[in-house]
Amino acid sequence: MKEKEPIFKLRSELNYLNRLGFDMYRKDFLLTWEKTHAELIATLSMAQIMQLLYRDNVAMRAFQTGLAISQFRDKSTRTRFAFSSACNMLGLGIEDVDDEKTQVSHGETVRETANMISFLSEVIGIRDDMYIGRGHTFMKEVALALDEGFKERVLNMRPAVINLQSDLDHPTQTMSDLLHLQNYFGGIRNLKGKKIVMSWAYSPSYGKPLSVPQGIIALMSRFGMDVTLAHPEGYELMDDIVELSSKQAKESGGSFKVSHDMKSAFKGADIVYPKSWASFSVMKERTKLLERNDSAGLKALEKKCLTENAKHKDWLCDEKLMSTTKDGEALYLHCLPADVQGLNCASGEVTQEVFEKYRIETYREARYKPFVIAAMIMLCCFRDPVAVMEGFYRNSKNRAG
Amino acid sequence: MKEKEPIFKLRSELNYLNRLGFDMYRKDFLLTWEKTHAELIATLSMAQIMQLLYRDNVAMRAFQTGLAISQFRDKSTRTRFAFSSACNMLGLGIEDVDDEKTQVSHGETVRETANMISFLSEVIGIRDDMYIGRGHTFMKEVALALDEGFKERVLNMRPAVINLQSDLDHPTQTMSDLLHLQNYFGGIRNLKGKKIVMSWAYSPSYGKPLSVPQGIIALMSRFGMDVTLAHPEGYELMDDIVELSSKQAKESGGSFKVSHDMKSAFKGADIVYPKSWASFSVMKERTKLLERNDSAGLKALEKKCLTENAKHKDWLCDEKLMSTTKDGEALYLHCLPADVQGLNCASGEVTQEVFEKYRIETYREARYKPFVIAAMIMLCCFRDPVAVMEGFYRNSKNRAG
Amino acid sequence: MKEKEPIFKLRSELNYLNRLGFDMYRKDFLLTWEKTHAELIATLSMAQIMQLLYRDNVAMRAFQTGLAISQFRDKSTRTRFAFSSACNMLGLGIEDVDDEKTQVSHGETVRETANMISFLSEVIGIRDDMYIGRGHTFMKEVALALDEGFKERVLNMRPAVINLQSDLDHPTQTMSDLLHLQNYFGGIRNLKGKKIVMSWAYSPSYGKPLSVPQGIIALMSRFGMDVTLAHPEGYELMDDIVELSSKQAKESGGSFKVSHDMKSAFKGADIVYPKSWASFSVMKERTKLLERNDSAGLKALEKKCLTENAKHKDWLCDEKLMSTTKDGEALYLHCLPADVQGLNCASGEVTQEVFEKYRIETYREARYKPFVIAAMIMLCCFRDPVAVMEGFYRNSKNRAG
Repeated sequence: MKEKEPIFKLRSELNYLNRLGFDMYRKDFLLTWEKTHAELIATLSMAQIMQLLYRDNVAMRAFQTGLAISQFRDKSTRTRFAFSSACNMLGLGIEDVDDEKTQVSHGETVRETANMISFLSEVIGIRDDMYIGRGHTFMKEVALALDEGFKERVLNMRPAVINLQSDLDHPTQTMSDLLHLQNYFGGIRNLKGKKIVMSWAYSPSYGKPLSVPQGIIALMSRFGMDVTLAHPEGYELMDDIVELSSKQAKESGGSFKVSHDMKSAFKGADIVYPKSWASFSVMKERTKLLERNDSAGLKALEKKCLTENAKHKDWLCDEKLMSTTKDGEALYLHCLPADVQGLNCASGEVTQEVFEKYRIETYREARYKPFVIAAMIMLCCFRDPVAVMEGFYRNSKNRAG
Repeated sequence: MKEKEPIFKLRSELNYLNRLGFDMYRKDFLLTWEKTHAELIATLSMAQIMQLLYRDNVAMRAFQTGLAISQFRDKSTRTRFAFSSACNMLGLGIEDVDDEKTQVSHGETVRETANMISFLSEVIGIRDDMYIGRGHTFMKEVALALDEGFKERVLNMRPAVINLQSDLDHPTQTMSDLLHLQNYFGGIRNLKGKKIVMSWAYSPSYGKPLSVPQGIIALMSRFGMDVTLAHPEGYELMDDIVELSSKQAKESGGSFKVSHDMKSAFKGADIVYPKSWASFSVMKERTKLLERNDSAGLKALEKKCLTENAKHKDWLCDEKLMSTTKDGEALYLHCLPADVQGLNCASGEVTQEVFEKYRIETYREARYKPFVIAAMIMLCCFRDPVAVMEGFYRNSKNRAG
Repeated sequence: MKEKEPIFKLRSELNYLNRLGFDMYRKDFLLTWEKTHAELIATLSMAQIMQLLYRDNVAMRAFQTGLAISQFRDKSTRTRFAFSSACNMLGLGIEDVDDEKTQVSHGETVRETANMISFLSEVIGIRDDMYIGRGHTFMKEVALALDEGFKERVLNMRPAVINLQSDLDHPTQTMSDLLHLQNYFGGIRNLKGKKIVMSWAYSPSYGKPLSVPQGIIALMSRFGMDVTLAHPEGYELMDDIVELSSKQAKESGGSFKVSHDMKSAFKGADIVYPKSWASFSVMKERTKLLERNDSAGLKALEKKCLTENAKHKDWLCDEKLMSTTKDGEALYLHCLPADVQGLNCASGEVTQEVFEKYRIETYREARYKPFVIAAMIMLCCFRDPVAVMEGFYRNSKNRAG
């Protein structure tokens, strides 16, 4: 681990960032695969710089005033607080769009609401991950409405839309995971040739989104890693994203394969990410039933899925399995909260022994999220974000005290 | 349209504002008809200046710290976000009084709560529009409690109360509408002689507040316009406000009339504002039933009203009707969200064709609200608001970056 | 009353504060009895200084950015707004942990959530007062998790935990009460020898927390006062705290006694605090029933308690009782909202006559809370809080305008 980076590294980080040639200004951050390699690196680098300055008590008030809007259409703890923390660190106030408190139920259209909440807004963070075919579509609809509003001078600026988890991707999570790997292994180049296993694991609940596993394979396959996606048959991810990952792996000098056997997948792994999800076909069926308000159908589906899940209780990350990884010491990743067997469930994704060994590392993994989100905002909202950061560094105004 | 105002106009706007002779310091903004002509113009002018500075990326942090309290006793999207945006732009944090999260249900009195939430508060924005005879009364009760608290040194200052919609008026909406008209027609003097029609229109819902139509006739009748209030018999507004509007129209060199025929009302109109509302008598009856918790009575009333409404489905703003207005090009206004026939309801206030033609204009109309609210706050909270604005202009500190 | 303190007193207050020798940096504020005498005085003094500067329009932005987290596991008005006001005054943004909006129900552990919400947080304010044996324990669990997170470099700093009411103590309330007494009687030394009565009083509701009476006797017994705790038999507080109060009273040169007769207790009192609470034994039984989800048992308990309460309707603070206090002019205290007989209940803690006489004083009592909370934050979060305050004083940047 290379955590204690000296503050003098900042200048070289800034120079490096400046050379990268990224073009993210006034563009949204919805899917990592819409971003170039340089843009991903720029985001990680910016997040790293922010953490350095933050720990050195440097104020980073990029905005004197301004609003960030959050719209959570599903529950959230860490992403909610990470988003709030990031926005607050940059000087933005946070307002939540709560569907119950708005007139959305009065028949307001998405394009209208998008404009009505954006008159003085700099960023809109959206979580919409419940229904396949919905979340990303909703975000694009919001983005188009904002384009129109800005073009027509309804809006004073074009707020950036940040994906806080959709049906397709969960970039604030996966980029934090990647930054964790970069720091854990001493540099992004050291990830080349590392074996990472994104594996399904048993959970007593059903209907967990596909966005994390999809986001992980689509992102990690771009850095020369050997990516293995492991799951029981029937727990497929979306075809397009699996194909994309396979293509990217080849291009980056790594490899990609799908396995239906957790045990063989874990063998020799450097990094493992065992986590439950619902299958694509279940999620599609669920979406249809939800559209029809078919609660009997939904109950039947849940029952069927839980029965199906229960056949795979052996997809469990335990000590024995971990001992088969590289030197028995693969890094365990999880987006949290994990289903920890014996802690918060009878059977789960991971045993208490394994989880406890890596618990602090999973917290460290999560810790990057506020800085990753702040980096995305900085890169999307400023024409010359490096100059803004240099200003903070030179002024060196205290954040606290 | 005269949207692209050059920034050098700011100085003359400020000079103009300085000459107006307004006296709004430490007074609430509850009803437009409690404000002088100069005070209304000052509010519009201040809002205009703020929009100029905002677009020029000038920070307007009038408050280093301070709280704005919002209390929404009815749903809201655009007013909620407009209030938050305005307060944030001036440097205030926003805290919402949520009746469910407070001890109001523990028997706390209005006068007590008003003081308890105001120790460090600069502004209190209240929406209370559901019951006739209640909303404005509630706001006055809060205002009196604050007067007492300040006099008795319970409060460190007297926060300004801003009406975010009451049973009587909706000044943040109507002042935005007026600023939209001023800019659309190239100046407030150009409104003289213009024909504006505030018209009832059919909606599949019932119980919509009277505050918008009442606020519109009471405000627009002060600028020399020919104001027509059109509605089916039985959909009367409050007598006092209709009489006031008639009186004001005469005094300002305009006219005022009530029509029960949408078609003749629209003829030759420069501006039309077709929008549904419940009648005063229905709202009074509803308030009584609500006081008695008479849910059977409420259901019966709703049914009766919807049946009554349904007789007037021909009160619809369509292309044919619009073609009878001045050059077939009257400006369509709406406070949003509109009941758009075929979009969010089967029969509604306006056809999709007409609404789509004016959709962007209605967004522009709404866009003024944050600046109007910020102007109200600035005028109510500062002894010399022009000096404060000049300070922002001279310092020219960047809002973002 | 000595309210109009001249601003030149500030320097001597700061000097005094500097001499006190307190050591509160990076420690939580959970129980007043964990703090030394000097630390309590420092908190009062800091709150007083802040009020002086606030009234002089001096900005006290100790934080350029930063989050304060509030977690209310019970309803709150004045503490909620006092916490928000305090944090906002110091420059912190406020985020609420709403158990319903988080994944706590997804099986997240306390130690995990504590870290996940704290990456960029400076303060965590918690109210958890419903269950005996729970609230304080929960706060300690959070505190330990934060210790671990900071030690392991998960957290960039160790946020301060502030008790906003637990099952044991309510320090932000009792310290405000104490500051009110200090100012009312012209100095903390003048409290020596004063008789204060913390008395149970009848209320039509049941299950009110013990934290206020416990906190009051445990705090007031440290300043040489003659403390009387009065309640009907069966309404005992926790033994430990009663014993602690008795011990402290002796040490500070005051006295402590328990009475079961409101009338004799009030005789000659300088200060009275009549307020309802549930008994310790009832609260314990209630906690057990709640743990078992025994709703029939809970209903039976409530019925039993209300019947028991109703036997003591004569525990009422009325004019006649007040006339027996020192010169008939004892200061009436209440944490609000009070059960005022004839105002918000048929029988209650206090008559309308008595309450109305002291109403404004109770508001003044409440008014200190934002400053007391801000003082706690300042003392917990800064190594040299006096220097920070001197900085504000010297810079004299306007809070508003």
